[in-house]
Amino acid sequence: MSTKGYNIVSLIRKKRDGNPLTRDEISYLIDEYTKDEVPDYQMSAFLMASFLNGMDEDEASALTHSMLHSGRVLDLSDIAGTKVDKHSTGGVGDKLSLILAPIVASYDVPVPMISGRGLGHTGGTLDKMESIPGFNVDMTLERYQEILAKCGMVMAGQTEEVAPADKRLYALRDVTATVESIPLIAGSIMSKKLAEGIDALVLDVKFGSGAFMKTHEDAQKLAETLVAIGEDFGIETVAYLTNMNQPLGYKVGNWLEVEESMESLQGDGPDDVMEVTHMLAGTMIMLGGMAKTVEEGIQMSHKAVGNGQAFDKWLELTEEQGGDASVLKDFSAYDHAEYSFEYKAPQSGYITEIDAYGIGMASLELGAGRKKKDDDIDPVAGIELHHKIGSKVEKGQPIVTGYMNDENLIEPSKNYLADAFTIKNEQPESIKMITRRVDREGIHPTGD
Amino acid sequence: MSTKGYNIVSLIRKKRDGNPLTRDEISYLIDEYTKDEVPDYQMSAFLMASFLNGMDEDEASALTHSMLHSGRVLDLSDIAGTKVDKHSTGGVGDKLSLILAPIVASYDVPVPMISGRGLGHTGGTLDKMESIPGFNVDMTLERYQEILAKCGMVMAGQTEEVAPADKRLYALRDVTATVESIPLIAGSIMSKKLAEGIDALVLDVKFGSGAFMKTHEDAQKLAETLVAIGEDFGIETVAYLTNMNQPLGYKVGNWLEVEESMESLQGDGPDDVMEVTHMLAGTMIMLGGMAKTVEEGIQMSHKAVGNGQAFDKWLELTEEQGGDASVLKDFSAYDHAEYSFEYKAPQSGYITEIDAYGIGMASLELGAGRKKKDDDIDPVAGIELHHKIGSKVEKGQPIVTGYMNDENLIEPSKNYLADAFTIKNEQPESIKMITRRVDREGIHPTGD
Repeated sequence: MSTKGYNIVSLIRKKRDGNPLTRDEISYLIDEYTKDEVPDYQMSAFLMASFLNGMDEDEASALTHSMLHSGRVLDLSDIAGTKVDKHSTGGVGDKLSLILAPIVASYDVPVPMISGRGLGHTGGTLDKMESIPGFNVDMTLERYQEILAKCGMVMAGQTEEVAPADKRLYALRDVTATVESIPLIAGSIMSKKLAEGIDALVLDVKFGSGAFMKTHEDAQKLAETLVAIGEDFGIETVAYLTNMNQPLGYKVGNWLEVEESMESLQGDGPDDVMEVTHMLAGTMIMLGGMAKTVEEGIQMSHKAVGNGQAFDKWLELTEEQGGDASVLKDFSAYDHAEYSFEYKAPQSGYITEIDAYGIGMASLELGAGRKKKDDDIDPVAGIELHHKIGSKVEKGQPIVTGYMNDENLIEPSKNYLADAFTIKNEQPESIKMITRRVDREGIHPTGD
Repeated sequence: MSTKGYNIVSLIRKKRDGNPLTRDEISYLIDEYTKDEVPDYQMSAFLMASFLNGMDEDEASALTHSMLHSGRVLDLSDIAGTKVDKHSTGGVGDKLSLILAPIVASYDVPVPMISGRGLGHTGGTLDKMESIPGFNVDMTLERYQEILAKCGMVMAGQTEEVAPADKRLYALRDVTATVESIPLIAGSIMSKKLAEGIDALVLDVKFGSGAFMKTHEDAQKLAETLVAIGEDFGIETVAYLTNMNQPLGYKVGNWLEVEESMESLQGDGPDDVMEVTHMLAGTMIMLGGMAKTVEEGIQMSHKAVGNGQAFDKWLELTEEQGGDASVLKDFSAYDHAEYSFEYKAPQSGYITEIDAYGIGMASLELGAGRKKKDDDIDPVAGIELHHKIGSKVEKGQPIVTGYMNDENLIEPSKNYLADAFTIKNEQPESIKMITRRVDREGIHPTGD
């Protein structure tokens, strides 16, 4: 971006002293880092100073720009339509991509979706898709565009070609305790999404025990930063703050979530899953120019589920990407887990809290997730909740069924379950799933 | 120190979040870094977090301990007497070591002094000694002890054997903008001083424009941290806060400062130089057990200058370390600078400020200092002030003479001089040279 040279120590000092860097300075630093001209030890000092002193929206945008242009940026202009994607900051039981993408694509709004794998207590969309026999998410960028042109959607894994500077920076943040910084998180998310060649973006920013952002306040700040960066790049960006204080839906685990997604696409989805799905899908349909308002988009989303067009779209995509669509229509044809166990309510009363983090970890312990990047996962392992917050249960009544292929995993999983549920005598207030909409005009409370 | 393993990312996160680390945790981190088990990029993130969130005295002490024991720690128990050293945080025209060390040693208080070279606007004691023809500061630690035993003092350069972890950490701080941190500075100073095998230590902590600590407040914090660390290691430690808002004495530059030191040892020293010298030397004589009080020590210091015993001690040391003592007795025998220039008062009035930093830089530009570590220095280059703060001068009257061996250096030097002097119509208040004494009992105002 700049032909000007800066003294790297001066740039670190500037951030250390709480002063914002110019766009040119940020670009120079990231570009030189990507070219191996700035060593890791200087970048990590800068990252820690940025973590503690913050970055403004201009800096976050310049950071995104450099990371985006460190790799290949797709040009989807040959494909007709307004390309719209959705990104979630990640939660437990979050299978929304599998439901909303075919809804939106069924209205000829192209959805080019590049997703990541799960790490820790949250699942990854790629892992869920790969639990469908034959479903292939690894492809060249040429094949990616071909599928998108043909099906109106595509679901692929990240390639080395996309935002390599982000990959390197993320690895450095991971080992230097500088991950949980809002501008750094925002830059990382947006550089990868902007590389997809999208025209508009909907963001699902989760808050609560099962989310990366524990507080509503932090989630809102992240949403504002994400929207500011998107708008800065000329991409219309809308974010929703959604509740992750209990898992989304009833099923947690890769194949289990595919099952729940297919049920949802056929009109049998859980209320919380469908409420957020319709809001996000309706917004995407509107941004894609196929509805005048979000409300109209939401009605269209309901219709696509009701008449089967979204489910058909998903089956079409599955076959295009090499997957076995038959098991999606008949779950009994799928090779399920060898063992299961029930976790029973330790007392009678109303379930007032379900710690989503604990449920995510209970599922991970059964084999559904990864503790380290290279761990294998078991596609059929996971947790099925029989009740959610607000349900009245009797002592000894099964409230969870766990699935796994190794009986030794039951105890570690139960240890998490034992702490995950709070049962009290009084009925809790109902949970508001979507609390805010953040767009270029500001922050708006949603619904009631 | 610890056989326990800690997760390095957790330690960085703890400091990032503003929590103090335990002694064991600090030791583990520094020890593993020294063993190359912790990479620079993690250490630099930790250093930046420590810079911004601070370290308490326990942490600074544990840091010092690890750096100290990363190398050789001298055992001077074979040498009789209480070994006392002095350390200065560095200033412009600060030649006090060359004056006070022979005063103290002349009373049989052993002074084992390991010094550094100059960098930037402040001079280094080693560079001053090396301007004496033949004076050798590089020696084995065995030879160091031999000279100390024979002369009661020794002046040597740092070796690779002393506190190698500090050397490595300092190099990392230098390139990551984490130098100016009080606990990190204190740990660096104390690990090197404690390695000398001393029993007591006097610290000259300077504040003002020519000092590392610009404010009195920061200098006081540094003094408190240094004293706390010293006491924690069982070394009686006394610090003085001294004024560096104008250069010490009249001469700045390596050989020029040797000249002024020799004049001082023969009873012809500038008032400010001698006031601080006698306070520090008197305290060292007291700590060395040869005076009951600092006041008695100060009287003894005056006497050692008056009767020539301190100058004789310096001549003895010079010859022992290979130096030519004849030029110290007759400066005309020394090979002086080829060129000189005068800088004249731009207006009449009282000199109210002399920016010590500017004078240091003016001297550096003439060849007396280093901009980078490997620069050569010119021993005879430097600045002689003819007036100090409070003097009345007439417009056009020479107030500075500059000495150098290259006429091209005059202009860059004059650029600094032009900004260094403030001349006003009203006489300024006199400068208080020593403002505080800090010892294990606390902080005390000094003098009147």
